[in-house]
Amino acid sequence: MSLPKQITDLADVLRGLPQVGQRQAMRFALALVRDGQLRAELAAAIAALGGATARCARCLRLAETSPCRLCADSHRDQSLLLVVEEDTDLEHLEGTGAYHGQYFVLGGRFTASRGTAEEQGLSLSALAARLTESKGTLKELIIAANPTIDGDTLALELQRVAKTAGVATSRLGRGLPTGGEIEYADDDTLRESLQKRG
Amino acid sequence: MSLPKQITDLADVLRGLPQVGQRQAMRFALALVRDGQLRAELAAAIAALGGATARCARCLRLAETSPCRLCADSHRDQSLLLVVEEDTDLEHLEGTGAYHGQYFVLGGRFTASRGTAEEQGLSLSALAARLTESKGTLKELIIAANPTIDGDTLALELQRVAKTAGVATSRLGRGLPTGGEIEYADDDTLRESLQKRG
Repeated sequence: MSLPKQITDLADVLRGLPQVGQRQAMRFALALVRDGQLRAELAAAIAALGGATARCARCLRLAETSPCRLCADSHRDQSLLLVVEEDTDLEHLEGTGAYHGQYFVLGGRFTASRGTAEEQGLSLSALAARLTESKGTLKELIIAANPTIDGDTLALELQRVAKTAGVATSRLGRGLPTGGEIEYADDDTLRESLQKRG
Repeated sequence: MSLPKQITDLADVLRGLPQVGQRQAMRFALALVRDGQLRAELAAAIAALGGATARCARCLRLAETSPCRLCADSHRDQSLLLVVEEDTDLEHLEGTGAYHGQYFVLGGRFTASRGTAEEQGLSLSALAARLTESKGTLKELIIAANPTIDGDTLALELQRVAKTAGVATSRLGRGLPTGGEIEYADDDTLRESLQKRG
């Protein structure tokens, strides 16, 4: 005996979502079985996605036009290119108003244990092409990878790509987060804050 | 500036899944944006769910017939009723082959901090009706709630319902799990294993 096949099938599909295991997928499936409204809303939201999955051909971010508003803006600094993993990272950085250069979106989270960035479907060869193409005007590739082992590993890969293209690289600063307290900071953060003091 | 509205809408819907926060919902939405195949499969699996969301009117478990195969089986012990939170719990217990009584599915996970079982959409009044209706033949309500604070709180609620209906209750045994080692057992488990020794 077992649950109806349609339910286990749905759970199998839901396992395809990032970092969802077998038990969580089954919990999601049962929630969708139970909640007809959620089911209808999700089906509608997926169907409505349509054109919203289009990307700017230049920075590869999700955008309804190509080139996108940011890439088409001639007032933005052409000498800086900032590379992020996900669109949400770009949104967050752009939201600060502290950056006025170009962007490039790799299109996925990098996990060191899952192979190279290319193997994980990240747009590394497109970035290499972009670097070669922008040579001359481009002065610096800012690598906005997370300050984690995964991020550090990704940064190494990106630094290699930039080196081949002859472009200098930098990473986002590390140290104490604003509002953070030394008493509660972890050792790695304190160490970085000492090394990167200024 | 921000992500296309269709994407934030999808993330909002995905927050309706159990224990999914804002960031995880956005990660799921971006995965669906990125992966057209996953999107198509999920839409198809939801559409295919159809009749598989039907429940047995007697035990409330997911079943294509009502009464379901288990409720219709006259060889099963009518004096025992085992109550579980979710269908998956029932599957698991039935899979052991160690139980031959009746079942009742409350239809959701109980979280003590989120109010009463009734407030969380669990079928408590249907259980009360079932207990009253089965009075005479029914001897014992077996409460298969998890050995956790949430499970203990749910058990208290169920014991109250059973008391009102004049039905005796029991809970699943507690102690060392088979294959477990005393050296690594936590204190609560050891304490239970001493109290429930036999």
